[in-house]
Amino acid sequence: MNLQDTIVAPSTPSVVSALGVIRMSGDKAIDICAKVFFLPNKKDFISHIVANKAYYGFIKENDTVIDEVICTVFLAPNSFSGENTVEISHHGSPYIQSEIIRLLIQNGARLAEKGEFSQRAFLNGKMDLSQTEAIADLISSNNHFAHDLAMQQLRGSYRKELKDIRQNFLHIASLLELEIDFSEEHEVFVDRDQLTKELTEVKQHLKSLVDSFSMGNAFKNGVPVAIVGKPNSGKSTLMNALLKEDRSIVSDIQGTTRDTIEESITIQGLQLRFIDTAGIHNSEDTIEKQGIERSFLAIDKARIVLYIVDSSNEDYKSVNKNIELIKQKSDFKEKDLIIIVNKSDISNLNKKDTLAFEKDKAIFISAKQNEGIQEITNTILETMHAEDFSSKVMISNQRHLHALEKALEEVSTALEATEFGISSDLISENVRQATSYLGEITGEITSEDILTSIFSSFCIGK
Amino acid sequence: MNLQDTIVAPSTPSVVSALGVIRMSGDKAIDICAKVFFLPNKKDFISHIVANKAYYGFIKENDTVIDEVICTVFLAPNSFSGENTVEISHHGSPYIQSEIIRLLIQNGARLAEKGEFSQRAFLNGKMDLSQTEAIADLISSNNHFAHDLAMQQLRGSYRKELKDIRQNFLHIASLLELEIDFSEEHEVFVDRDQLTKELTEVKQHLKSLVDSFSMGNAFKNGVPVAIVGKPNSGKSTLMNALLKEDRSIVSDIQGTTRDTIEESITIQGLQLRFIDTAGIHNSEDTIEKQGIERSFLAIDKARIVLYIVDSSNEDYKSVNKNIELIKQKSDFKEKDLIIIVNKSDISNLNKKDTLAFEKDKAIFISAKQNEGIQEITNTILETMHAEDFSSKVMISNQRHLHALEKALEEVSTALEATEFGISSDLISENVRQATSYLGEITGEITSEDILTSIFSSFCIGK
Repeated sequence: MNLQDTIVAPSTPSVVSALGVIRMSGDKAIDICAKVFFLPNKKDFISHIVANKAYYGFIKENDTVIDEVICTVFLAPNSFSGENTVEISHHGSPYIQSEIIRLLIQNGARLAEKGEFSQRAFLNGKMDLSQTEAIADLISSNNHFAHDLAMQQLRGSYRKELKDIRQNFLHIASLLELEIDFSEEHEVFVDRDQLTKELTEVKQHLKSLVDSFSMGNAFKNGVPVAIVGKPNSGKSTLMNALLKEDRSIVSDIQGTTRDTIEESITIQGLQLRFIDTAGIHNSEDTIEKQGIERSFLAIDKARIVLYIVDSSNEDYKSVNKNIELIKQKSDFKEKDLIIIVNKSDISNLNKKDTLAFEKDKAIFISAKQNEGIQEITNTILETMHAEDFSSKVMISNQRHLHALEKALEEVSTALEATEFGISSDLISENVRQATSYLGEITGEITSEDILTSIFSSFCIGK
Repeated sequence: MNLQDTIVAPSTPSVVSALGVIRMSGDKAIDICAKVFFLPNKKDFISHIVANKAYYGFIKENDTVIDEVICTVFLAPNSFSGENTVEISHHGSPYIQSEIIRLLIQNGARLAEKGEFSQRAFLNGKMDLSQTEAIADLISSNNHFAHDLAMQQLRGSYRKELKDIRQNFLHIASLLELEIDFSEEHEVFVDRDQLTKELTEVKQHLKSLVDSFSMGNAFKNGVPVAIVGKPNSGKSTLMNALLKEDRSIVSDIQGTTRDTIEESITIQGLQLRFIDTAGIHNSEDTIEKQGIERSFLAIDKARIVLYIVDSSNEDYKSVNKNIELIKQKSDFKEKDLIIIVNKSDISNLNKKDTLAFEKDKAIFISAKQNEGIQEITNTILETMHAEDFSSKVMISNQRHLHALEKALEEVSTALEATEFGISSDLISENVRQATSYLGEITGEITSEDILTSIFSSFCIGK
């Protein structure tokens, strides 16, 4: 991929529509444009160019008019990519789009690789790596929270957070440096208590970012809500009742297994992904056992677990035992459990048991009669909104999580080493590593491989 | 539909992509935009507006940033619609697109009807009706010729042609007017020979436009080529061989019946739609008979008919009889017939028959061996290119055809009346009617119903 090339790509889908936009970026963008774009008054385009001005004119191949277009020139560095850029807004015909791109390529441009405009924006210092990723997230955001997360990241709040941590690292490193310089005289200048304190602070900061992923990811990709319980307790009926809340935005989610049914709705800007699981009970049947195992996997992936109890029979008596079983068999930290007491219309509960459920903040419903359903969604929304979203930076990108976890690991090692009185040059190495992991997020430290893998997941023309 | 409203619509498809564009047009477009669009330096947008300039800034709802956008303002009358227009180029997320449109509507805009921007462009005198239709054609053009036809129409060559005819009508009308003025004195001032001459000229002009539809329509929607012949003469093998020429652009065509197979390829910018028909022969079988009837319908719709003869058996002896049958049973005027002698590798033809076929300019092929196929496509292309495309105005719009046919009818009546010596006030009425039909094409004379029906077939945001 030669970054000296002038690149061109469609910025809008190749579908019949009112308008289409083609973007060209690079040193020769204006020259190439001037070869095919003509002003109506036949005046020379280049000598009339004013940056950021939209010009009406014609794209011509020899004397044939390919389209009437609006052409806007952005001059480096004041463009998305930081290079000279031309945007051509044409009539929304896929044929015209491909003809104009063919013509621009014929005159010296090259078709852009996926994400190449963003890559250039990054390399030209227009934005850091996490911001280019934020744009990709922004484009694919389909609900209020995913959008807000991406916008927050694009606008640099996340970058600020990382900058604070790196500032701390710098201070720690300078403390350690001092100690190393004098280490030959076997004098320990650094106040190890101070070092411990600062490392502990950074560790907590990193940990809170790592922990925010569970919530950030739920906001970005939808909150996974597992519906579990014994067979015939009414799981599917509940799922249908929940989805009925706003059927118009129910959608299938790709990649679900055949044994768990997953559907999603968006309520108040939050996407909820309901996962209906096989009933959990003791079974000798091999196939059924497999289904149950998958239920536990679904619980593992869930952020919220709805445990449904059938109150019309003896089922409710084993509720505590079953919940214990679930907690044993699956990874339950950071999950919220909501107990749903179903079939309240034909309930068999006595006063004592009812009180016990009430104490556990259980929700009493009749899925069949569509009673109490609203309370479930309200409770889920409250659980999620308990996080003060606006004031807190959340990470939602797997790559960032990975880098933060690595950094956290190094800091934890450094902290232990400090407490064990290990020499500062070894601790220094951990801190250096941790800093480097953070640098990967914003792209200050990256290999070409990483860049290629990031940008190749972007869409064309971005 | 209130034309005083400020309207808004997406101009690009609601699909994840690099960019999306939203267009807003009307008196309040700038005011509404200024309520939600903010420059980065917090300066007031309205007091800084320069027409045709692209501004970087933020779409905000209260303090929440919905997107970073590029906003370009076009001031009336220098915009597509002729009204004040704002174009917002945003990150290509369907969620963001719908959020921005929601916000603009909340601030006083209304969602545009289909084609409403074009309708306003027409009503504000930015283009005539046939030009707005040309834009719709341009957008859906998928090959070189369809594109050129639409561009020709958009750029006004067709309008010029109609203007010439109307000029003639004006002259004829003034001749007739003169005669009417003096008719009470029973003096016939008009030289009826002159009148006949001028009406004949106009009639020929109109007829050539009407006749151009067959070709214009073929260029616009693809040239229908029917492949007919007896059963087992190799029709399907030929069709496959023809499509193999450029398999990459083979596409299915919607709405074909199950009994005729239709597929299209684009060769040298011309779309060819091959229609494989059931074998034509005498049959007593009811279902087969229906298939054969459909074959005749396919021939009716074709521009070019490939009649395929099996030279390996006695089939070729009945070729003339069969072609006669086809010509009897279907509408054959203006169709080109190409005789294809198939199975030349196992041919059973004697010298005399071979010579007879050569005299008919038949093409000798072996569909199975893929021999002679190129010659067929070359012949089809020659047939079509025989029309001097560039120098001739072709009509390709059903509505225009209908209006021209009506005008032609009136002129023919006027011509007959002139020759029969009928009084000039009656002839005058025909000429007036013909003029009015022409006016329908450009929209000088139109009812609201016609406008509504035309623009409702446009895409949204256009």
